[in-house]
Parts: sequence; structure tokens; C-alpha cells
Amino acid sequence: MEQAEIGIYGLGVMGFNLGRNFQRNGFRVAVFNRSPEKVRLFVEQPAAGTQPRGAASLRELVQMLEKPRRLLLMLPAGKTVDQAIEDVLPYLEPGDILIDGGNSYFMDSDRRSQYLAEKGIHFIGMGVSGGEEGALWGPSLMPGGSQTAWQILQPILTAIAAKAEDGAACVSYIGPRGAGHYVKMVHNGIEYGDMQLIAEAYEVLRRVLGLGAVQLSEIFNQWNNGELKSFLIEITAKVLAKTDEETGQPLVDFILDEAEQKGTGKWTAQNALDIGAAVPTIDAAVYSRILSAMKAERQHASTIFGHSAPAFTGNGEDLIRAVRQALYASKILSYAQGMAMLRIASAEYDYGLNLAELARIWRAGCIIRASLLNDITAAYQAEPDLQNLLLSSYFSETVNRLQQSLRKVVMIAIEQGIAVPAMSASLAYFDAYRSERLPANLIQAQRDFFGAHTYRRIDREGVFHTRWEEQ
Amino acid sequence: MEQAEIGIYGLGVMGFNLGRNFQRNGFRVAVFNRSPEKVRLFVEQPAAGTQPRGAASLRELVQMLEKPRRLLLMLPAGKTVDQAIEDVLPYLEPGDILIDGGNSYFMDSDRRSQYLAEKGIHFIGMGVSGGEEGALWGPSLMPGGSQTAWQILQPILTAIAAKAEDGAACVSYIGPRGAGHYVKMVHNGIEYGDMQLIAEAYEVLRRVLGLGAVQLSEIFNQWNNGELKSFLIEITAKVLAKTDEETGQPLVDFILDEAEQKGTGKWTAQNALDIGAAVPTIDAAVYSRILSAMKAERQHASTIFGHSAPAFTGNGEDLIRAVRQALYASKILSYAQGMAMLRIASAEYDYGLNLAELARIWRAGCIIRASLLNDITAAYQAEPDLQNLLLSSYFSETVNRLQQSLRKVVMIAIEQGIAVPAMSASLAYFDAYRSERLPANLIQAQRDFFGAHTYRRIDREGVFHTRWEEQ
Repeated sequence: MEQAEIGIYGLGVMGFNLGRNFQRNGFRVAVFNRSPEKVRLFVEQPAAGTQPRGAASLRELVQMLEKPRRLLLMLPAGKTVDQAIEDVLPYLEPGDILIDGGNSYFMDSDRRSQYLAEKGIHFIGMGVSGGEEGALWGPSLMPGGSQTAWQILQPILTAIAAKAEDGAACVSYIGPRGAGHYVKMVHNGIEYGDMQLIAEAYEVLRRVLGLGAVQLSEIFNQWNNGELKSFLIEITAKVLAKTDEETGQPLVDFILDEAEQKGTGKWTAQNALDIGAAVPTIDAAVYSRILSAMKAERQHASTIFGHSAPAFTGNGEDLIRAVRQALYASKILSYAQGMAMLRIASAEYDYGLNLAELARIWRAGCIIRASLLNDITAAYQAEPDLQNLLLSSYFSETVNRLQQSLRKVVMIAIEQGIAVPAMSASLAYFDAYRSERLPANLIQAQRDFFGAHTYRRIDREGVFHTRWEEQ
Repeated sequence: MEQAEIGIYGLGVMGFNLGRNFQRNGFRVAVFNRSPEKVRLFVEQPAAGTQPRGAASLRELVQMLEKPRRLLLMLPAGKTVDQAIEDVLPYLEPGDILIDGGNSYFMDSDRRSQYLAEKGIHFIGMGVSGGEEGALWGPSLMPGGSQTAWQILQPILTAIAAKAEDGAACVSYIGPRGAGHYVKMVHNGIEYGDMQLIAEAYEVLRRVLGLGAVQLSEIFNQWNNGELKSFLIEITAKVLAKTDEETGQPLVDFILDEAEQKGTGKWTAQNALDIGAAVPTIDAAVYSRILSAMKAERQHASTIFGHSAPAFTGNGEDLIRAVRQALYASKILSYAQGMAMLRIASAEYDYGLNLAELARIWRAGCIIRASLLNDITAAYQAEPDLQNLLLSSYFSETVNRLQQSLRKVVMIAIEQGIAVPAMSASLAYFDAYRSERLPANLIQAQRDFFGAHTYRRIDREGVFHTRWEEQ
């Protein structure tokens, strides 16, 4: 038998579906998994395409691969990946390529990249987005690491990646070391922001206008025909339309309101602080999931805290339009934060990120795919050194046009006692970002007062300290 | 000469002033510093009290100490402390006590505590708050680590600590390992929140009512006679009253509005995410400093983004009262977050924290000292297992009474285009926390749609997955 072009170790749902994707696209695939059941399933029911081979051991898997070997690890992030690298190293030889397609922490990928380079192995840390369906039919791929490996992998990755409307594949070399996993992390942080903003729009319409899930589904369906067009809006409409088989009522109303998380949103928020980037919308999305999980405490608190909201007297259609515009404005503000974070990280970690390329490969395949990303791609293609997306002519005009709706919706939510943490944070970011002067002068004075931390002045150079207590 | 009761290595401003404090209180002090100039200064101009001794080397310093030796390190956090420990270890013997009074990261203190215990050395990681003046005249002290060491140190630390109005010393054994530095970290995070909230109150009054620094100083002075009474409000009034010697105008108006930070606020925000605590007010304070530092970008953005704010038509006195109440409400909400974080951390790290004691020792000496801390102490003394400060009868009544003013001020700020990120975040936290139901059900449905992450239901037990695309 001919040797395989790609080997996959780890047949969880993502590894399994990526394998099917390779195979369907005509590549010769070999697979291995700790539990042989998955291997048998993969081999015995192949999709149309090549006949895959199943290995009974990691060693056998490596022996099935043509040289230079291309081995894709699809394993849980953390120690499992380190262990797998140690397990497979004895069978590899210089020039082979090891790809980590899991959700690894970028600093782990930085470390592994260097470790494997010392052994002559080319390492690729690759972010994969798109969930199960994306993995199977075309994900957005974010490979970072060895450029030599990228040259070799480019055809095969291009073949399996999602294609945008213009036909371009959603894959691009991201940068050295852990750059691919870094970008995937921020992608996920942006995804957290999107989901929270949509949830807030849903909540405002639900509570202020008393709309039911079916009516809300129609609204999101309409929104998906305009500037908000995106995968997450599309599935929100589908979720809201879904009927619970048992009760015949909308299923969403029976789902427990405790959101879970797997860590990439948290990593994004934490890393932003390390590199000095402000991503308040993502922060709000992460802490909102934390608060949602405190259900028992919230139930208790709800019996203690009242709020006599005035009756909403506005026009319903006007509010629906304002919420749509507020959602789009806050989404732009969230992406502006995320892209600015990537710009700062690129300098901090010397990743050489091409922001236009990142937006381009997010246009299809991944969870945050949206028509907005066409405009973001265009903005960065026109001005690659753009400091902040908001400063581009298209987005500054758009946000200037929409800001009043965002203000209106946040004010209505506050008046009605509805929590809109991510919309509020987006607006506060906007108002701070567009302020020539912030009250941080007072903070610097306080710091100098109690800690002699010194301050600078607006009217002349130098570092100053004042003995504030003296008259 | 009699041997010293305490040795200090590191005569930066904090070490120097703590040394003076020990000495003024009648303790025999020996000091060492890498640069001998500071040692000479400390020894040659002693305050009233004992005659201090200066050492020419670390070895000599240790030899000057009575046994069991008590050696206080007052050094920059990080590798300097690890190096100092290695440098001093050869001269110490089992039973001696090493105290780290710097701003060390709590996990470093956890590690050092274990490392030194293996060598028979008692380690204390001690948070010290109060700035220069506090160190000299009475700081708030947060010692954690060896209980044996605490028994020995209690008299000397009690003597130099700040005394609250009821005469109680602001020091208490915090908990094992890095508990002292952990609590100091959260203290600093709360301090970041306080400073940002004050800055926002200042900004709203300055911009909406057009008040000058002198008028604002009077307002803060008045506020310092009521429920807001605190060190930070007091120094804000003094800062605003200070005249620039050169121009004769208020000095605060000439201070550059780029706030700096030294990292403890960032650590607090990052750690909160690790342990699953929501501290959005602190988050907002930290990212506001980041945004303030982007001055050039902000100046550019201010020329691009307009906002035609409607003229403020309300009553000035009413607004001043509302801002005072909004500041107090958001301060309570910020402390509720910080105390809840400490409760969660206590379980996470097995620190056994006594929240009433923490609030008690923050009542004097430290930067966040405030009359509010009397009420927080009382709330936790009455209910040590209180899940959240907001659930106590005193604070629930207070926040219920003040919430309308907080809503009003945030809405006015939004309408006027003034960024109030920390007040907004406090209010969003409140509205989320008091919500029996949050829109996280939609987020769980989305996650199950694209990632098969499953969800739970409100009407029955179990874990569910839906094939959302099927009709």
C-alpha cells in the first residue's frame, strides 16, 4: 500500500472530522487513537475518497507515513500534548513535521516549537475553528511555526480549508512559534464577545417588548440579511425557532442559564492585561459567564433587590431597529479591541501578524465568520498599519452613525434594570478611546500623593513629584 | 551592644520608614542595604527611640540579630527576593524567621514558604499597605505564613501597625503560605477600583456642571464628612485644592492624564478569572489605565468621533447629590466583588481567610481605609459565611436605596458622552447579580449548536444535546 500523506493521532470529534475532510479531498490518511474503537469506525466507514489506514500503535502510525512525515496531533491541550510529543519523538527523524491542531496555549506552542527545532523536527501550532461541521466541511485554519513546514503543508491545508465567497481558502501562514495558537485564542475571545452581545440584544428585546422566542427568531432572521449577517446570528435564529419535543414550547426557554467555558476567553482577557491591551467587551463576556454560573446566589439576590422600572413607552419597531444598530456598533467596537490586541501582541511577541490576512481567513469556516470581516479585511488591506480599526474611514463613519442607538439601548436597559455588561463596556471603551482628555490626571496625582510615584505634565517635559500636604 | 530584635534588608522608602517605625516604638533595629549611603543615613539621623545599627554586609546583619533571628526583606518583588533568600540562607539556622514585606506575587510566597519550611526557616509573606506615611506612622499589615513565626512577631507587629478609632491594631494573622500577599493583592485591586470610581465622579461633575478644581475640592471635602469618608476622598480634596506654583492655577489641571500601574491590579483581575470570581469594577479600573496611556491615539480619535450631547438641563445640586450616591453605591458594589473574590480564593487555596478580620485591619493605615470598612467588618462579624456582602441586611438596604442614583448618573454620563467604565461595570454587575434569570440559556444553546457542548434544563435533571439543524 502507498504510504499516507497525513497521519492523525487523536480521533475525538475534531480529529475524526478533519480526517474525513482530508480523505474526502483525496489525500491518503492514516489514523491512530488510544481507544481502537474510533480507529475501526474511521477505517470501516470511509467517506467517498481514499481508503484510510488504521494503526494499532503510534509507532505503526508513523511507519505508515511518507517522508517527510506529516503527523497531526488532535489531543486535549496541556500535558497530553507534551506526553504525545515525547511518545512520538523516537520514531521521527529530522525534517519530519509535527502539527498540533488542538487548542493549546500559545506559550506552550512557543516552547514546543523551540524544543522540536532543536531536534530537527518542524513544528506547526495550528488553530482550527469551525466546530464539528467546520472540521468536516471546511474549517478556518491558523497555522503558525516552521515556515519550511508551511511550504510543504500549504496544498493539503488549502484543500481542506473553508472557501470564502470569493473562492479564497481560509488558511494563511500566521507567524512563527505559537502565533497560530495565539491568533486562535483571540479569535475565541472575540467569539465570547459576539455571543454575549447577541445574548444581551435578545434579553433587551425579550424583556422590554415581551417578545417570545418565535418572534425573536424572526427578528434575528431578518438581521441575518443585513450588516449583521454571520454564522452566530444565523444559528441564534435557528436556536430560537427550535421546539422542545416534549412540551411543544420553544426549547431555549427550558435551557438552564448557566454558561460554561473552556478557557480560551479567559486566556484572552488575562493575556490582554499582560501586553497592555484593553479588551473590555471580551472581559465582560467572560465575567458574565462566571456570574451566570452563580445561579443559586442570583436566585437569592433576586428576592432581596427590587427595581421599580418605569413602563417602556417607546415604539417597539424603533427599539428593534435601535437594538440591531447597538448590536452592530458594539460588535465593531469589540472587533476593534480584538484587532488592536493582535497588533500589540505582534510587536510584543515578534509574531509579524498580518491583520488583513487574519480577517480574511476568518471570513468563512470559523465560528465568528461574518460579513463584517469583509469590511475589516478591506480596512487593513488599505491601511496595514492602522492603529485601531475605529480609525479607518469606513468604521469611523459607521460607528459615528450608530453610536446614538448604542447609547439609547444601554440607557433603556439601565432604566429597566437589565444587565447589558458587554454593550456597556463597548460604549465605555468608545467614549474613553475618543476622549482627548481622561480623568487619569487625578489618578496620577493620588498615586504621587500616597506613593511618591511621580507624574508628568501637559505643559512641559520632565518627571515631577509634589509634597501635596504642604501649603 | 545588645543584639537587635529585628533586621531589615532593603532601605528603599518602605524599608527605611518601617525601620524608623520599629525604632521609634522602642525596638532595637539593625539594617543593611546594597548601597551603604542609605545605611549611613538611617543610622546617623535616628528618630527618637533606640540607636539603630548598620551592617556592612548581609552576613554582618544576620550576626547582629538575637535568636530566633527576625529578618525583614524589603526588596523589589521577583527574582531579587529569591536571590536575597539564597544569599541569606547560609547564615540562618532552623527556627529563624524570614519576612518578605515587599509586594510579592502570592504564588511566589506559596513556593518560598514551602521551600524555607524544608530548611527549618519560618517564612512570613507580609502585605504592607499605607505608602510612605503609613510605613512610618502605622501601616496596615497582612502577615501570612508560619503560625509559629506569627506568635513570635505578634507584639512587634502590633506595636508598629496603625490603630483604628477603637484602638485595635491593624494587623492580624491572615492564613498559611502566601495568604498575606494574596490579600494584599486584592486590597490593591480594590484600591484601583476606588481610584477609578473617584476619577469618574470627578469627571462627570467637571464636565457636566463645568466645575473647576477648587469647587470640586470643596465637594470632595464635604463628601469626606459622610458615608464616603475615606483616605482617598480626603486626598482627592487636597489634590484638587493644590495650586501650581508656577502658574497659580490648580496643579491637577496640568498633570498628564496617563495613569501608570505597577501590576497588582492586573494580578487581581487575572487571578479572579483563574478562580472564577467576577470583579468587573476592578477590571474596568485596570483597562482604564491602559486606555489612558494611549494618549496619542486618543487625541487622534477625538478629532474623528463627534457626539452632539444635549445640554444638561437638570439641577446642579441634585446632580452633585446623585453623583455622591452613585459613587458610594458603586464603591459598595466594588467591595462586594473584592470580598467575594477573597471568599472564593480562601476555598480555592485553602487559606482559611476570616473576612471580618480582613475588613477590620483595613480600617486604618492602608490606602483604602474608609468608614465603609466598619460596616463591612460588622456585616461579616454578624454573618461570617455571608456569600456576598450585598446579601447582608445593611448593604442590601443601602444599595436598594442608592441604585436609582447610580442608574441616573450612568445614564447622564452616557447621554453626555462621558466614559464611566467602572460605574457602568458596577451597575451591570448589580443587575446581573440580582437577576434570577440571565440570557446565558441562549449562549448554552449556541455552544451546543456549534460545538456539541451540551446543556442542562430548568425542568429536569440531566445533560442534553440537541441536533439543532434538524426540523
